[in-house]
Amino acid sequence: MTSPLRLGIAGIGTVGVGVIRIVQRHADLLAARCGRPIQITAVSARDRSRDRGVRLGEYAWEDDAVALARRDDVDVFVELIGGDDGPAKAAVEAAIAAGKDVVTANKALLAHHGQALAEAAEGAGGVLRFEAAVAGGIPCIKVLTESLAGNEITRVMGVMNGTCNYILTRMESAGLTYDAVFQEASDLGYLEADPTLDVGGIDAGHKLALLASIAFGTKVDFGAVKLEGIERISIDDINRAADMGFRVKLLGVAQMTGRGLEARMQPCLVPAASPLGQLEGPMNMVVLEGDSVGQIVLRGAGAGEGPTASAVMSDVVEIARGQRLPTFGQPASGLATPRPAEANTPAPYYLRMVLKDRPGALAKIAACLGAEGISIDRMRQYDHAEGSAPVLIVTHKAMRSGLDAAIAAMAGTDVLESEPVALRIEDV
Amino acid sequence: MTSPLRLGIAGIGTVGVGVIRIVQRHADLLAARCGRPIQITAVSARDRSRDRGVRLGEYAWEDDAVALARRDDVDVFVELIGGDDGPAKAAVEAAIAAGKDVVTANKALLAHHGQALAEAAEGAGGVLRFEAAVAGGIPCIKVLTESLAGNEITRVMGVMNGTCNYILTRMESAGLTYDAVFQEASDLGYLEADPTLDVGGIDAGHKLALLASIAFGTKVDFGAVKLEGIERISIDDINRAADMGFRVKLLGVAQMTGRGLEARMQPCLVPAASPLGQLEGPMNMVVLEGDSVGQIVLRGAGAGEGPTASAVMSDVVEIARGQRLPTFGQPASGLATPRPAEANTPAPYYLRMVLKDRPGALAKIAACLGAEGISIDRMRQYDHAEGSAPVLIVTHKAMRSGLDAAIAAMAGTDVLESEPVALRIEDV
Ligand SMILES: NC(=O)c1ccc[n+]([C@@H]2O[C@H](COP(=O)([O-])OP(=O)(O)OC[C@H]3O[C@@H](n4cnc5c(N)ncnc54)[C@H](OP(=O)(O)O)[C@@H]3O)[C@@H](O)[C@H]2O)c1
Ligand SMILES: NC(=O)c1ccc[n+]([C@@H]2O[C@H](COP(=O)([O-])OP(=O)(O)OC[C@H]3O[C@@H](n4cnc5c(N)ncnc54)[C@H](OP(=O)(O)O)[C@@H]3O)[C@@H](O)[C@H]2O)c1
Repeated sequence: MTSPLRLGIAGIGTVGVGVIRIVQRHADLLAARCGRPIQITAVSARDRSRDRGVRLGEYAWEDDAVALARRDDVDVFVELIGGDDGPAKAAVEAAIAAGKDVVTANKALLAHHGQALAEAAEGAGGVLRFEAAVAGGIPCIKVLTESLAGNEITRVMGVMNGTCNYILTRMESAGLTYDAVFQEASDLGYLEADPTLDVGGIDAGHKLALLASIAFGTKVDFGAVKLEGIERISIDDINRAADMGFRVKLLGVAQMTGRGLEARMQPCLVPAASPLGQLEGPMNMVVLEGDSVGQIVLRGAGAGEGPTASAVMSDVVEIARGQRLPTFGQPASGLATPRPAEANTPAPYYLRMVLKDRPGALAKIAACLGAEGISIDRMRQYDHAEGSAPVLIVTHKAMRSGLDAAIAAMAGTDVLESEPVALRIEDV
Repeated sequence: MTSPLRLGIAGIGTVGVGVIRIVQRHADLLAARCGRPIQITAVSARDRSRDRGVRLGEYAWEDDAVALARRDDVDVFVELIGGDDGPAKAAVEAAIAAGKDVVTANKALLAHHGQALAEAAEGAGGVLRFEAAVAGGIPCIKVLTESLAGNEITRVMGVMNGTCNYILTRMESAGLTYDAVFQEASDLGYLEADPTLDVGGIDAGHKLALLASIAFGTKVDFGAVKLEGIERISIDDINRAADMGFRVKLLGVAQMTGRGLEARMQPCLVPAASPLGQLEGPMNMVVLEGDSVGQIVLRGAGAGEGPTASAVMSDVVEIARGQRLPTFGQPASGLATPRPAEANTPAPYYLRMVLKDRPGALAKIAACLGAEGISIDRMRQYDHAEGSAPVLIVTHKAMRSGLDAAIAAMAGTDVLESEPVALRIEDV
C-alpha cells in the first residue's frame, strides 16, 4: 500500500489552511510515518480569489463542496466548512455515498446527525473520523476509543470550550466583570459568530454528546445534554468560590447511572488544587475514568489553527495507515438508545443570593431548603450593604430537582432581591 | 474477521493477573468494541501451584514461556515476565519467529533490544506493541505515534517513575528525609527488587529512550540517555526550591538539537505552578510538544495492576481490530542512528553547597564559576551555623560541562564542606 492517499479539502479557513500547511511542510515525515505519501488533490471554499496565505495553485478547485466530495481523485473527503446543516452535511453525505472516507472537525454536524452519518458510512464501507471535533488538539477521541477500550468507562468530564475558560479565569485574575471580559474575548476573536454557542454551553455540549456515545456505546443524543451557560456567573461567584478553595468551570460530565445516562454541561465548582481547577486561559482538559485505568487527564489547546489541524491529520494518518475504526468505536447500528437520566446524581451545591434586609429573611430561605429535605453545610452573610444582604449557602448533598423546587419556593417568600445562582460542586 | 483473537499470556504476576481479570470481566464489551471475541488460550508462569486469585483452569498451562510463544492456538503472545534478558527475551524472540504478534510491558527488554526485536517482528510480518512499558496507564505511545503523527516533535518530557515522584513529594509534604521516605516506599512495596532501577533513574531512562525513538524516528539508544538519580536530593534542596517557587522532579527530557539528540533523566527544578510541578504522589505525567499541536500533557497512574493491564489491553484491542503499526511508528529498518548530543542545551542551574566558614570562601566559589564564564543570578547564605555555611546559588544560563568544570575547580579550593548539589532548572 504505497500509493498516495489523496485528500479533497472543503473549507479553507482557519483549520483548512492549517491542514494544508502541515501536508506541504511535512510531506517526507508523513510519508515515512504512513508508509505512503499524503497528497492534496482538490480544494473548495466560497471565494476562489481570496489570498489565504498558503499555496493552492497545484490543487484542483471546486466551487461546490459536493462536487469535490464526488471527485474520482479524492480518497478522503476532509470537511472543514462547519455548521450542523447546509453544505457541510450535503457534502459529507455525498462523500459517503461515493464511497469516500471522511474526516471532519465539525462537532455541530456530528452532534445532530452523527448517528445517521456513521450508519451511512459504515454501510458504505467508509470510515468517518472526527478527532478535531472534540477538544481540538487533545487526542481524546483516540484515547477513549482505543487506549481505554479495555475499560468500562465510568465517567467522562471536560472543560472543552476554551473561550469560556478564558472568560472565567480572566475574570478571576484581572478582577473584571463578565461583561468586560466577554468584550475582551470578542476583541481577541475568541467568540463564535453566534456567541451563545460558546457562553451558552452549546458548543461544549456537542462535544460532550460525542464523548458520551463512545464512552457508553450509545447513540449520540445531544438533546439529552442538560445545558447551562456561564452568562450569569458574576465576579462575586468567582471570588466566593475562591475563598472556599474552588474554581468555577464550565464543566461537562457524562456518567452512566442506575437511572440512565446523565450528561450535563454547566458551570460548576471544582477544587482549585485539582487538575481541572488549575486549568488557566483558553485551554481545554478532558478527564476520562475507567474501571481499570483509573483517571486519565489530557490537557492541551482546544482550538486554533495548529492544534486543530494536528488532530485532523491524526485521522488522515490513521486512514493512510489502513486503520479502519467505526465512528463511535463499535458499529453504529449496534449502539444502544440511551435512556437519559431524569435526575442528576446528588451533589453539594453552592447557592448565592441577595436578600432584602429584613428580619427573618434568612430563616425563610432556610425553611424553603428544609422543606425539600436539603440541609445546609455552611451559610454566611457578607458585605452587608444598605437594604440588601448577600448570602452564600453551601448545601449538603442534594438533588438538583429538590434545589430547583426550593428556589421556586424562595421566589414566593418576597425576601429575594434577585434570582439565586446555584452551582453544583463537582467531585473531580 | 469475527474469529476470536487468542492470547497466550506469559507472566501471571501483578500485570498478568490484571490482564486476565479484564478479559474475563469484559468479554462482551471487548467483543463489541473489537468486532470479535478476545480469548485467552494458554498461560505460563514459574509456579503452577500458586493461587493467584484469578480463574486459570480453563487455560492451557505451559511451564516454559518459549513453548507458550510457539503454540498453534496463540495469535498474540503477551509477555509480562519482565527483565531485559533471559526468559522474556527468549520467549519474545520465539514468538516473533513463529509469526505471532507480541504485546509486552517490558521497558527494560525494549530499551536494550527494541531495535533488533522490532526489525525481527517487522521482517516476519508481526507487530510488537508496548503501550504498557512507558508510563503504565498513560496512553503516551499511542498518542505520540498516532495522534501527533502530523507534527514534527520538538520535545518530549516526563515524570515516569511514580516511586521517585512519591519520594520527592512525600519528603516535601511530610518534611521527612530521603532515607525515611525511601524506607516508607519500600514498606509500601513501591520499589523494584533492585531499587537502583527506580531511584537511579534507570527505569525512567528506559522509558525515555523508547519515547525518543518514536518522537525523532531514531533507533532506541538507551546508552545515550544521561542518567542521574535522586539519591542525593535532600529535604534542604526541596525546601530551598519551594522557597523560590520550584519543585524537584526526576524529569526526563528528550529533544533534537542542532548538536544531536539530547536525552537526559535527572532531578530538575520545575515551576511549582506548572502541570509537572503540580504532580503529586506516585503519579506519572508525559508532556509531548509538536510544531502544530503545541503542548499536550497526559497524566495518570504509571503503574499498578489496573492501569498497566489497561494499557496492555489497548495493544491487544489494536491488534484485534486489525491495526498493524510498526513498533516505533515507522519501519524499524529505516530508523536513523541518533547522534547523541555531546552537551546539553544551556539552562540556569540551582547549586547548593556547604562552605567552611572562612573569610573569602564565597569569593573563591564565585571565582570558580566566573572562570567558566558562568554568571550568578542569585546567591544566598542561610541557616548560618557554627563553622559551616550553607549557600544557595542560582546561575544564569550555563552549559552543564562548564558547571561541572567549575565544581571540579571548587574542590581544589579547600573551602567546600561537601560536594555541591547541582540541579538544572528546566523550562517546562
Ligand atoms: N477554528 C478552530 O479553532 C476550530 C477548532 C475545532 C473545530 N473547528 C471546526 O472546524 C470547522 C472549520 O472551522 P474554521 O474555524 O476553520 O472555519 P472558518 O475559518 O470560518 O472557515 C470555513 C471555511 O469554509 C468555507 N465555506 C463556507 N461555506 C462553504 C461552501 N458552501 N462550500 C465550500 N466551502 C465553504 C469558507 O470559505 P471562504 O473562506 O471562501 O469564505 C471557509 O474557507 C468547523 O466545523 C469548526 O467547528 C474549528
Ligand atoms: N507492576 C507494574 O505496575 C508494572 C507497570 C508497568 C510495566 N510493568 C512491567 O510488566 C512486566 C511484569 O511486571 P509485574 O509487576 O507483573 O511482575 P511480577 O508481579 O513480578 O510477575 C512476573 C511474572 O513472571 C513470571 N515468570 C518469571 N519467570 C518466568 C519464566 N521463566 N517463565 C514464565 N513466567 C515467569 C512469574 O511467575 P511466578 O508468579 O510463578 O513467580 C510472575 O508471574 C515487567 O516487565 C514490568 O517492568 C509492570
